[in-house]
Amino acid sequence: MPAPDLARTLFNAGLDDFEAAAARVAGDAIRTPLVPWSRGGERSIRLKCENLQPLGSFKIRSGASAVATLAAPGSIVTASAGNFAQGLTLAARRRGLPVTVHAPDSAAGVKLEAVRALGATVVTHPFDRWWQILETRESGDGTFVHPVAEPAVILGNGSIGLELARDWPELDTVVIPFGGGGLATGIALALRAFGRDVRIVACEVETAAPLAAAFAAGAPVAVQRQPSFVDGIGSGRVLDEMWPLLARLVDDVIVVSLAETRAAVRALALEGHLVAEGAGAAALAAALSPRCGGRHVAAVVSGGNIDPARLSEILGGA
Amino acid sequence: MPAPDLARTLFNAGLDDFEAAAARVAGDAIRTPLVPWSRGGERSIRLKCENLQPLGSFKIRSGASAVATLAAPGSIVTASAGNFAQGLTLAARRRGLPVTVHAPDSAAGVKLEAVRALGATVVTHPFDRWWQILETRESGDGTFVHPVAEPAVILGNGSIGLELARDWPELDTVVIPFGGGGLATGIALALRAFGRDVRIVACEVETAAPLAAAFAAGAPVAVQRQPSFVDGIGSGRVLDEMWPLLARLVDDVIVVSLAETRAAVRALALEGHLVAEGAGAAALAAALSPRCGGRHVAAVVSGGNIDPARLSEILGGA
Repeated sequence: MPAPDLARTLFNAGLDDFEAAAARVAGDAIRTPLVPWSRGGERSIRLKCENLQPLGSFKIRSGASAVATLAAPGSIVTASAGNFAQGLTLAARRRGLPVTVHAPDSAAGVKLEAVRALGATVVTHPFDRWWQILETRESGDGTFVHPVAEPAVILGNGSIGLELARDWPELDTVVIPFGGGGLATGIALALRAFGRDVRIVACEVETAAPLAAAFAAGAPVAVQRQPSFVDGIGSGRVLDEMWPLLARLVDDVIVVSLAETRAAVRALALEGHLVAEGAGAAALAAALSPRCGGRHVAAVVSGGNIDPARLSEILGGA
Repeated sequence: MPAPDLARTLFNAGLDDFEAAAARVAGDAIRTPLVPWSRGGERSIRLKCENLQPLGSFKIRSGASAVATLAAPGSIVTASAGNFAQGLTLAARRRGLPVTVHAPDSAAGVKLEAVRALGATVVTHPFDRWWQILETRESGDGTFVHPVAEPAVILGNGSIGLELARDWPELDTVVIPFGGGGLATGIALALRAFGRDVRIVACEVETAAPLAAAFAAGAPVAVQRQPSFVDGIGSGRVLDEMWPLLARLVDDVIVVSLAETRAAVRALALEGHLVAEGAGAAALAAALSPRCGGRHVAAVVSGGNIDPARLSEILGGA
């Protein structure tokens, strides 16, 4: 059953709620560094290094926050194809709770293996059945935790916003990769709750840009998706539940090219000495774009889980 | 002219001196994160990420500290083949001071170009003449700053030790790449000044291990050097001036293999999402060694300036 009113719950969340979420994730996630990027020109750019988290992405924050808020701790269930399932499973394992992950049978085998290795039971389904579980939250086998449209997940992601607010008083713009919207809305709401007026720029890659399409149409619409190495963002459509939040919280959407994203992966590795996956590098690519605006810009490098062969190839190219 | 008594000066340095040095470098260097490494087994390992510094190595601390302590700011001179010259030049440029870098004509062209691009005048010499400048500190053209055996350089490197002491109360062992000894002695002295009793483990790579040889012989001796991709450490001999410090401050030396170092470069990139050069990765390789000992071990990832083709090749290998 969908959360009755996700947007209302979250717009009513105060600083206390975000502080509580930050406290919940503190034992599992690290407080990530905000590292200056030296080549922003007039624009001062800093990288929020979520790629340095355990498991290599911000999803440990989402998972830990969700597990810690369960009213009746017991068997946990989610529908996810990878990163969120890993974060949730690691956080649950530390608390001795079993996790069942429902995944589409099209999910990458290596990601499902990683979830199994962390201790989850993985059940695969034809894509349509899997999507039905994700939409209805009904799988019949435990407490369902949605990977995106879930108050505790979004509050947990908000811990990034609190860290940004405290670490950089001059921050005026934050660039956030858009996958399902849980990261962008969490950061945006936390900054608001903290009393900071910061422009929220979502970024997408040209191969799949459902948020830009939703803003153009005034509502979520289906878009074409081309598979690419940027596998952490880029769904076929904005979730209906997330749209009221996104429509109010996101100030701008920048769509970067695959070439810009590859160049950002390369620059992050060779100049920043950070390994970023496509989604994370896209945030830097967008922050460097003339379209971005802002003087003090944080780019959220959301994760670092890039295929080694792909990274090798990007570094090998001159 | 060599500093009259480097060891005496530094053993007399108190916490105030290290705090002053940390304040001197604060405008140029960042306070680097200490990131947990998830695969240390029983041993808790954390990475001190100096590869995330501006210019990609701890040398910005050395350079900034040295420039800020000049009694009569004016023309600055050093003898260096690369990283230190960059750190010194960047720090000097920010203070409007000209820098002349004396380098051996065998130095990598790309490193000298980088120093020139930062604004230094570069003068190259036959190796023997260059070594003479390094030993005598006489070049006739300004205030000489030694890249290693220089109180302000070592005090500046000590800022890493203060950060470690504050960030990890349980720290019992720190593993530090050994190049000339300025990094290891700075960290060791700062930890002592802070009142912390921490084991100091220096690490070297099998292709050039002058410190292990000096400890075996009881004094600096010349060793064979094989060139390798680990170019940030591995001289042919411990500097005489540094030996009294090293002999008292270093508790153990671990020599790692090139294969272990390559594996650490790969693991840092793919599991830690950090790009490290050979010297920096060697510290993790040593921290993972059964020989290391310790329960709470910091590995100083000293820098990230690795050749892109080499990194690509290491990532490409399975």
